[in-house]
Amino acid sequence: MEQIIIDRIALLRTKLLERNISAFIIPSTDPHLSEYVASHWKSRAWISGFTGSAGTVVVTLDKAGLWTDSRYFLQADEQLAGTGIDLFKDGLPTTPSINEWLLNELPKGAVVGVDGKMFSVKQVEEMKCFFAAKGIELNTSFDPMEVVWDKRPAMPQDPAYIYGIEYAGVSCIDKILQIRARMTVEGVEGLLVSALDEIAWTLNLRGSDVKCNPVVISYLLITKDEVSYFIDSNKVTAEVSKYLSSQHVSIYDYSAINTCLSQLKIAKLSLNPEKTNYDVFSAVNSNVVRNISPIALLKAVRNEQEIAGIHAAMVRDGVALVHFLKWLETAVPQGSETELTIDKMLHQFRAEQDLYRGESFDTIAGYKEHGAIVHYSATPESVSTLRPEGFLLLDSGAQYLDGTTDITRTIALGKLTDEEKLDYTLVLKGHIALASCKFPYGTRGAQLDVLARAALWQKGMNYLHGTGHGVGHFLSVHEGPQSIRLNEVPTLLLPGMVTSNEPGIYKGGRHGIRIENLTLVSKDATTEFGEFYNFETITLCPICKEGIVKSVLSTEEIAWLNEYHVMVFNKLSPYLDAEHVAWLKDKTAAL
Amino acid sequence: MEQIIIDRIALLRTKLLERNISAFIIPSTDPHLSEYVASHWKSRAWISGFTGSAGTVVVTLDKAGLWTDSRYFLQADEQLAGTGIDLFKDGLPTTPSINEWLLNELPKGAVVGVDGKMFSVKQVEEMKCFFAAKGIELNTSFDPMEVVWDKRPAMPQDPAYIYGIEYAGVSCIDKILQIRARMTVEGVEGLLVSALDEIAWTLNLRGSDVKCNPVVISYLLITKDEVSYFIDSNKVTAEVSKYLSSQHVSIYDYSAINTCLSQLKIAKLSLNPEKTNYDVFSAVNSNVVRNISPIALLKAVRNEQEIAGIHAAMVRDGVALVHFLKWLETAVPQGSETELTIDKMLHQFRAEQDLYRGESFDTIAGYKEHGAIVHYSATPESVSTLRPEGFLLLDSGAQYLDGTTDITRTIALGKLTDEEKLDYTLVLKGHIALASCKFPYGTRGAQLDVLARAALWQKGMNYLHGTGHGVGHFLSVHEGPQSIRLNEVPTLLLPGMVTSNEPGIYKGGRHGIRIENLTLVSKDATTEFGEFYNFETITLCPICKEGIVKSVLSTEEIAWLNEYHVMVFNKLSPYLDAEHVAWLKDKTAAL
Repeated sequence: MEQIIIDRIALLRTKLLERNISAFIIPSTDPHLSEYVASHWKSRAWISGFTGSAGTVVVTLDKAGLWTDSRYFLQADEQLAGTGIDLFKDGLPTTPSINEWLLNELPKGAVVGVDGKMFSVKQVEEMKCFFAAKGIELNTSFDPMEVVWDKRPAMPQDPAYIYGIEYAGVSCIDKILQIRARMTVEGVEGLLVSALDEIAWTLNLRGSDVKCNPVVISYLLITKDEVSYFIDSNKVTAEVSKYLSSQHVSIYDYSAINTCLSQLKIAKLSLNPEKTNYDVFSAVNSNVVRNISPIALLKAVRNEQEIAGIHAAMVRDGVALVHFLKWLETAVPQGSETELTIDKMLHQFRAEQDLYRGESFDTIAGYKEHGAIVHYSATPESVSTLRPEGFLLLDSGAQYLDGTTDITRTIALGKLTDEEKLDYTLVLKGHIALASCKFPYGTRGAQLDVLARAALWQKGMNYLHGTGHGVGHFLSVHEGPQSIRLNEVPTLLLPGMVTSNEPGIYKGGRHGIRIENLTLVSKDATTEFGEFYNFETITLCPICKEGIVKSVLSTEEIAWLNEYHVMVFNKLSPYLDAEHVAWLKDKTAAL
Repeated sequence: MEQIIIDRIALLRTKLLERNISAFIIPSTDPHLSEYVASHWKSRAWISGFTGSAGTVVVTLDKAGLWTDSRYFLQADEQLAGTGIDLFKDGLPTTPSINEWLLNELPKGAVVGVDGKMFSVKQVEEMKCFFAAKGIELNTSFDPMEVVWDKRPAMPQDPAYIYGIEYAGVSCIDKILQIRARMTVEGVEGLLVSALDEIAWTLNLRGSDVKCNPVVISYLLITKDEVSYFIDSNKVTAEVSKYLSSQHVSIYDYSAINTCLSQLKIAKLSLNPEKTNYDVFSAVNSNVVRNISPIALLKAVRNEQEIAGIHAAMVRDGVALVHFLKWLETAVPQGSETELTIDKMLHQFRAEQDLYRGESFDTIAGYKEHGAIVHYSATPESVSTLRPEGFLLLDSGAQYLDGTTDITRTIALGKLTDEEKLDYTLVLKGHIALASCKFPYGTRGAQLDVLARAALWQKGMNYLHGTGHGVGHFLSVHEGPQSIRLNEVPTLLLPGMVTSNEPGIYKGGRHGIRIENLTLVSKDATTEFGEFYNFETITLCPICKEGIVKSVLSTEEIAWLNEYHVMVFNKLSPYLDAEHVAWLKDKTAAL
C-alpha cells in the first residue's frame, strides 16, 4: 500500500507541474460539502490511504501532509506510515493551519490549486485573502482527480424515493410555504440550496447515494414562482416524477445548475457561503445575500409526527440493543468474538426490526486501547479478540424510516482497573449533568458544554471532540445548526431539537470511554424569569453499571440513573420475551 | 424635576430642527468610551434625569426614549416618570434596538445625529450601514450639548501623578518594549490608544479625572520611534514632566491628537474600532489595522508585584469589612441606620486602612426589595431604614494604591423567609461551583458562566447580568478583555487574570441577593491532557451563614465554604483585636 500511495502522489505532482501549480489541497467532501460522501468523491482516501471520515491532504512538489482531528490521530499515524505523508494534528496549539503551512512552504508568486467544487465560498475567499498577503495565487478550476484517478467510481445512480407524509409530518408544499415566508422576511427572491439533507427534508425525498445517509445528489433552487430541482434524470422514477409534479417542483438535469444560475434574473439570491461550493457560486449572476439557510433551522425543530417517529424508532433500536447486549454477555467468554464479528451481530439484531433501513454510520467497536482511537474502525490487521476483561466502546446507530439513532455504550466485559472505573464514573457524571440540566430561552450549546466536562476537568482530564451534535430525521446522523461544543455556535437550543449527549475520555494505549444518548430539547416551565427548557433523553438502552464507583456519584446523580433505567425498562419490556425481560430487569435495577 | 427635563428636551429639539436633524442619540460615555465618565460628559443624565451608570437616550422630534439594562429597570422607571421619556428595557426579547426603533420611527431621507466623539468606530459604521438600508443619513459632527447644556461642568483639570514601580512592578520603558514587540508581530508601525485604563497602565501614571477611576483624560500614540502622550498641559506637573521624559515619552496637547493623526506618515496604524471614537478615527491618514490593543491583554495578566499587591490590599479591605460588619450587627437593632448612613461608616472603616485612595465605585446598599434593583443607589426620597429582618445587599469596593477591590455580601439582618433562604443558598451554590472549578488552557469565560447559573436554572430562576468582569490594578473596577458572561467573548482566561465571581437573584418588590468575590486565575496542574487552571479566591471576608439551607448544599460545597472561612480567619485575624478575632471566629466557624 505504501508504494501505491507514493506512486499516486508522484503522478499528481507531474500533473501539477504541467500546469505550473505548486501545491494542491484535497479535502474529504463533495460538491455539496457533505460530511459523508459517495465513493466518486473519496479522493482524499484514494490519494493518501487514510480512511478516516475527516481529513485534508496537501501535496506540494516535495512534501505531503494530512491534517486531521484528534479522533483520528492514532489511526492516521498507522495508515500514513511509509507513505511520505506527514501527519498534522489539528487542534493542537503547535499545529499550523494548512494555510499557514503553505504560506511558509511556498515562494512568492506560487500557485495553489483547489477544485472549486470541493470548497465552500467562504473557504475559497479566506484562502484567497490569506495567500494574497504573500502574493500567492489560488487556482480553483483544475480537478486533477479527473486525470490521475484511474478506475474512479462513477457518480451515484440510485433512484430517489418518496418519503411518506406519515413519517415526514409536513408535506413538501407546506414546507415550501414556510421557506418562502422566511424568504419574504429576509427580503430575498431566491434561495439556492446545496446541502443534501436540506434538499431531502424540503422535498420529502430520500435516496441511497451516500452510505448511511439517505440523501440524493442534487441542487434545489427556490424562487417566488418556481421550485427547481437539479438531479440526474436516471434517479427520477415515474413515481417520483409524478410526485414532484404534484408538489409543483420542476425537474432539471444536475449538470444544468451553473447555466441556470447564470441566467437567473432576480434581485436577491440567498445562499449559505459555508454550504455552497465556490464553483456553483461563481456561476451566480444575481445579487447574493449570504445567510444561513432558513431550511436548516426549520428542519432542526422537529414536528409532532417526527417526534412520535423518533420515540417509536428508539423503542425498536432499544429492543435490538437489548438482544445484542444479552447475546454479547454470553458470547465473549467463549473467546471467538472480535471487534468485527460483533458488528455483524449488532447489524442482524437491528435488521430484524420494523422500518430498518441500514446503519446511520459505520459502527465503532473499540476494545481496550482501541477505544482510545476516537473513530476507530477495526481492520483485519488491527482487529482485537474480545476477552472477559476491560472495556468495549461501542458507538453505533441505525436508520429507521421513522427516525435516525446514534448511541454509544462502554461495556465492561469483565474485570476493570480502578482507573477505568473512576474514568467511567467521571464520564457518567458529565453525561448526567448535561442530561439533567435546565436552561432558559436564549441558551446556546457552547454555554452548556462545560456541564459534561466539569467532572473530568476537576481531575485534569478532557476530551477534544464536541459533546453534542444535531441528528437528522431519517437523514444524516450529524446535522446542524445546533451543537453543544467548546466552540461558540450562535444557534439557540430550541424545543424540538435533537442532539446527542456524548462526553468521553481517551487514554492512548489504555482505554477509551464514551456514554452517548440522544436527547430532545423540551419545554420545562415558564416562570417569572421566562421560559425554561430541558433535555428529554430519548435513547432507550441500559447504561452499564459495572464501571460505576457509586461513592463518586451524588444522590441526585444516582437518582437520575435509576429513573432513566426505570424508563428504559418500562418502555422496552413490553416488546421483549421473558428471558430478555429478566435480563433487562437486572441491568436496570436500582444502583 | 419632570418639568426641567421636559424643557431641556424641548430646547434640544429646537436645535435639532435648526439643523434639519430628526433624531439625536445621547450615550453615557466620553471620547475614550469609558464606562465611568467625568461630569463634563454626563449629558445623558443631564438630558433625562436618569442617573444610572448605563443607558442611552434617543430624542426624536415627537418622542424620547431611554434604553438601559436590567440592572436599572426599576430605577429608570422611577426617575423617568413624568418626563415624557419612555423606558426601553434592553435585553428583553420584545425590546427593539435603538437602531430598529429609529428605523421604524423615521421617514426615508431623515437625518440621525450623534456626536462622533461619543461613539466608537464600530458603532458608527454599523449605524451607517443599518440606516442606509432605508435611506437614513447619519450626521456625526454636531454636539448639541455645547449649545443646550447651560452650566456644563468644565473638562477635568486635576494633575496626573506617578504610579510607583513598587506597585506597578514593571517600568513604563519595559512595558513599551513589550508593546512594541507585539506591534512587530502584528506588523504595524503605530498603535493608537484611546482607552484611559490602558494609557494609565502603560505609562504608570494615575489621575483623578473620573470619580472612582484613577485615570487621566488623554490619548497615547506609540510608534517604533516615539511615544506621544496627548494631555492637557495643566495636568502635567514638573515631576510628571521629568518622569515622562525619563521614560522617553513626548508630551503634546490633548487637542492636538486629530492634527497629529492626520499628519502621521506610517504604513500601518493599529487601533481598536470598539475603543476608538469615530471623530479621532476620521482624522487618521494611515492605513488602519483593526485589532484589540495588545495593551489590553498585557494589562489583564498581572505581574508578580501586582499579584502581591492585590493580596495585601485584600487583607486590609477584609479588616475594614470585618470592622464594618461587626459594627452593623449592633447598630441595626438600634433602629436609626439607613442604606445611606451605613455607607458612610463603611467608607470610614476603609479610609483607616493604609494606601486607601477612595472607593472603586459608588456603594450599592439595597435593603429588602431595594436589593432587587441591581445597581440601586439610595436617594433621600427612596432610602430605607434598616431593621433586624430580611436581607441587606451590599456591593462596594475600594481603591488602594496596591490594588482595586470589589465585593458583594448579602447580609441577613434578622429573620428570613424560606424563599429568601432557598434563593440565597442557590446563589451560593452557583458562586461555589464557579469558584471551585478547574479548566484547561483555551477556556473562555462564556463556557464557565453556566456553572454559576445551573443551580438557579434548575429552579427556573436566572439573572441577566454577567457573572464575572475583569478588575484593574489600582484602575477601573470593570476592565476587559476577559469576562465570564452569557455572551461569547473570545478572550481566553489565563493565569494572572483577576475576575469577579458574582451570581445573583433579583425578585422585584421582594429581595435581591448577590455573593461576589474576586478571583485570580492560577495554574492548577499539568496532566497528559494539557495545562489546567483554577480560580484562587482572593477576597477575604466571611460569607453570611444565616441565609444558608444546609441540606441544599453538597458535602463538597460545605467543604469549600468551610475552607474559605478558615483562610479568611487565618489571613485577617493577625490584624484584628481580640474582640474582632472572637467575632470573626464565630462568623467563620465551620457550617
